[in-house]
Amino acid sequence: MPKDNKAYAKCEKYYMQGKLFPDIRVGMMKVNLTPTVNRDEQGKPHMEQNEPVMIYDTSGPYSDPDYQVNLEQGLPRMRESWIEERREQMGQHMTQMACAKAGVITREMEYVAIRENMNCEALGINTHITPEFVRKEIAEGRAVLPANRHHPESEPMIIGRNFLVKINTNIGNSSTTSSIEEEVDKAVWSCKWGGDTLMDLSTGNNIHETREWILRNCPVPVGTVPIYQALEKVDGRIENLTWEVYRDTLIEQCEQGVDYFTIHAGIRLENVHLADSRLCGIVSRGGSIMSKWCLLKNRESFLYEHFDEICDIVAQYDVALSLGDGLRPGCIADANDAAQFAELDTMGELVVRAWAKDVQAFIEGPGHVPMNKIRENMERQLDHCHEAPFYTLGPIVTDIAPGYDHITSAIGAAQIAWLGTAMLCYVTPKEHLSLPDKEDVRTGVIAYKIAAHAADIAKGHPGATVRDNALSKARFEFRWRDQFHLSLDPERAQQYYEEAGHTDGEYCTMCGPDFCAAKLTHDLRKLKKEKIV
Amino acid sequence: MPKDNKAYAKCEKYYMQGKLFPDIRVGMMKVNLTPTVNRDEQGKPHMEQNEPVMIYDTSGPYSDPDYQVNLEQGLPRMRESWIEERREQMGQHMTQMACAKAGVITREMEYVAIRENMNCEALGINTHITPEFVRKEIAEGRAVLPANRHHPESEPMIIGRNFLVKINTNIGNSSTTSSIEEEVDKAVWSCKWGGDTLMDLSTGNNIHETREWILRNCPVPVGTVPIYQALEKVDGRIENLTWEVYRDTLIEQCEQGVDYFTIHAGIRLENVHLADSRLCGIVSRGGSIMSKWCLLKNRESFLYEHFDEICDIVAQYDVALSLGDGLRPGCIADANDAAQFAELDTMGELVVRAWAKDVQAFIEGPGHVPMNKIRENMERQLDHCHEAPFYTLGPIVTDIAPGYDHITSAIGAAQIAWLGTAMLCYVTPKEHLSLPDKEDVRTGVIAYKIAAHAADIAKGHPGATVRDNALSKARFEFRWRDQFHLSLDPERAQQYYEEAGHTDGEYCTMCGPDFCAAKLTHDLRKLKKEKIV
Repeated sequence: MPKDNKAYAKCEKYYMQGKLFPDIRVGMMKVNLTPTVNRDEQGKPHMEQNEPVMIYDTSGPYSDPDYQVNLEQGLPRMRESWIEERREQMGQHMTQMACAKAGVITREMEYVAIRENMNCEALGINTHITPEFVRKEIAEGRAVLPANRHHPESEPMIIGRNFLVKINTNIGNSSTTSSIEEEVDKAVWSCKWGGDTLMDLSTGNNIHETREWILRNCPVPVGTVPIYQALEKVDGRIENLTWEVYRDTLIEQCEQGVDYFTIHAGIRLENVHLADSRLCGIVSRGGSIMSKWCLLKNRESFLYEHFDEICDIVAQYDVALSLGDGLRPGCIADANDAAQFAELDTMGELVVRAWAKDVQAFIEGPGHVPMNKIRENMERQLDHCHEAPFYTLGPIVTDIAPGYDHITSAIGAAQIAWLGTAMLCYVTPKEHLSLPDKEDVRTGVIAYKIAAHAADIAKGHPGATVRDNALSKARFEFRWRDQFHLSLDPERAQQYYEEAGHTDGEYCTMCGPDFCAAKLTHDLRKLKKEKIV
Repeated sequence: MPKDNKAYAKCEKYYMQGKLFPDIRVGMMKVNLTPTVNRDEQGKPHMEQNEPVMIYDTSGPYSDPDYQVNLEQGLPRMRESWIEERREQMGQHMTQMACAKAGVITREMEYVAIRENMNCEALGINTHITPEFVRKEIAEGRAVLPANRHHPESEPMIIGRNFLVKINTNIGNSSTTSSIEEEVDKAVWSCKWGGDTLMDLSTGNNIHETREWILRNCPVPVGTVPIYQALEKVDGRIENLTWEVYRDTLIEQCEQGVDYFTIHAGIRLENVHLADSRLCGIVSRGGSIMSKWCLLKNRESFLYEHFDEICDIVAQYDVALSLGDGLRPGCIADANDAAQFAELDTMGELVVRAWAKDVQAFIEGPGHVPMNKIRENMERQLDHCHEAPFYTLGPIVTDIAPGYDHITSAIGAAQIAWLGTAMLCYVTPKEHLSLPDKEDVRTGVIAYKIAAHAADIAKGHPGATVRDNALSKARFEFRWRDQFHLSLDPERAQQYYEEAGHTDGEYCTMCGPDFCAAKLTHDLRKLKKEKIV
């Protein structure tokens, strides 16, 4: 609902060029702000410019007005030429980790360095994040840049605790609850609101085709849990799962372009019984499948036994491994128990094996954990998993709020991210109750953008407060449109404001025109300026 | 939407009797749970009883089916005879603090001891909260039991860091946005969802009449900011505010039954200028009014100068003082600055003066504070304010999410409550944008019940996890109705579940029947029991 009585903030797609690689163009949103109007003693206005603010943008080409959406054709294959050039120069395909270890800075690495720092240069903010720093973090396993060479549509991003905290969103139909179109629509929607990666957890029919549509149209890295499709292939009969079926599924998904796989290889036969005394048993689907397989066969899981082969396969595509927490606690009573930590320790062993094959890897964690037990998770993960990035679901800090678990978990997520978790898996209001619809995805993403950003601020990420400060200045100066454009959800903010009948008033809407504290502060400052007080 | 194919959980109003005072009856909700059905090898069912769970209930008589609501008549005046008996025994009216210092345990003190411990006795949980402990905490100023003797309708509750974390909700019309009926309706509504106290922040017309209706029908303590009404009396002209107008307003509101007053006596003439360099100036209404008064007159505020007289007045009614944070930060850039902490230090001086007159008092705090600056607030408050209870707005941990500030602030609230804040002032999704409607009140209250409860768990409050564990057991055993009844918002949980077409299925609704981790765990446990694996 644009109004014509005020100068307008303008939000536009903007591209920043590379320096090492001048052909790379990093997309972002540029929020151009209206000027502050100061008045002198005669009431004559003087304009004070407000610097534009760059916003990290996960929506890819969809937010570029020059881009024509064509789902059949898919997104532009931006990274295709980068990958090909690199293969020519290096004689073979190499993972980002292999390049990093060899001292090679890739285009992807410079891309993420620019992306992480977007306000720093213009505002003169010091930053530790250079392309060389990115390379070093990847080489040493502290960061992951998921980038299957068969998913060249994906824009590079980085997951590591010395970078911006990222969020993952889950989509996916279960049985027959939704169509392919709906899932692609949800994928694009989650990127629009700020999802950094996307997990497709579909388990129903058309699993291959759904994933193909998502991959070809998704501007962020895509993760999957391959055991779901493998189980479909054996008609849901866990006892019929074999390494061969699983291996073929991995290759199929590598070929399609999946950027990271959740693999529950941390489940050991000897540890499964540790969940027996739990209040809520095993709540991870992959974890329960593999636990049952181990017990039915009375043998070590094929994921653990064939872990090196898994690494050999994924290394050929630069698919990253997300070591799945099959034994994560499903209620606060089960938090930090022997089952959970035994698996974490196994993951620490596996991550070293992945790195030995130049495979990028990170570690999945939490679930339900009360606040007083969060720190132990993070410290144990850093200690036992050699600083591989931690990727946690929430944690949910109390079990008593079904319908509001985006909030119970955003509370835990903000804390664990501040302590060092690199990526947060979102939770929607429908968690525990049903699958999320589009509004739930939006709400879940925003709740997690809040948690991630709160952690970025607390950790002192370079330039993290630029947006907060610009928004607060706009708020204080009643530049409402600027405030909305700088918000995580401009549409919602504007909607609430306008529904109440407000229209660019110079008072804050909580207090009304007569009792507005901000207005009184302005009055005071004016009185002081005029030396009346 | 009750269904008839399952045994039902039953939620009922329950009263627990006093021991020191057998005539007191403490209202609570009793959630009777359905049994767990175990089956032996022949499939024969065996019932395992699940103990009922008691839930702290702020809704007062409204949730008692035997109570006939009559807004004209008001709620039963439960405490009237207690107050009268005490006056007869002690020769005069004495505040809860005066009684406590004299070693007298009041009915109110036993009431809150029962209320804080409701699951402990039945479940054999050790608790430190005895009536004597309550007395001692009040005597030493670490806890406040707000209980104006002119508000006998209010059910006793306690605010202190060694008790359950409480939440306050704000209602109140600004100018002409809502009617008296709407405000009373919102008050009852906020108590239904779990508001422990209620602040009436009305600033418009009918301020006295609105408050009268709220007080006579409100089962929780009511707070106000008397300067708002005082300012109405001088037609909004700050320069015309006087001690006399303010004093008369205090007396008027004491007589009506207000249980606590926010008084911005921490604003000192010499400190007002500290807010000059702020990004967002002064964002408290009361703070900006008093600051302007000080500057216009170039003198110390009448609240500070007459603080001892204020204490003398409120002591006669046992109205508690909430020392208002007029200089709380309105954006994260202003957090923990000299203005904020100068005021906090002044409040530490004032609280000692209140205690000297047996006036109960607590300290208001935060606003916008990034996570890394929360701890400093709490530590400084404990240190400078002599362990008087801390009562904080949020804090909001990032400024960039208007429309979602119930979440930005629940993140901060959970943390500061864990660190020792006794009461949290809720924030609704409409914060910064407009006034909350009923749905916003509900959402804000639930977000804050989550934050408070998460802190109770983290602090190890006796029995804090009873409800979590009962709910999680119900969830794991697919006792859906039990799960809903144990939820903070049973209606919302059930709605989400049923909208998705679910009806008491024995699978978790995220995964569907084929891939349900909880179901697989049950299968596994069955296999183990039958010695198949």
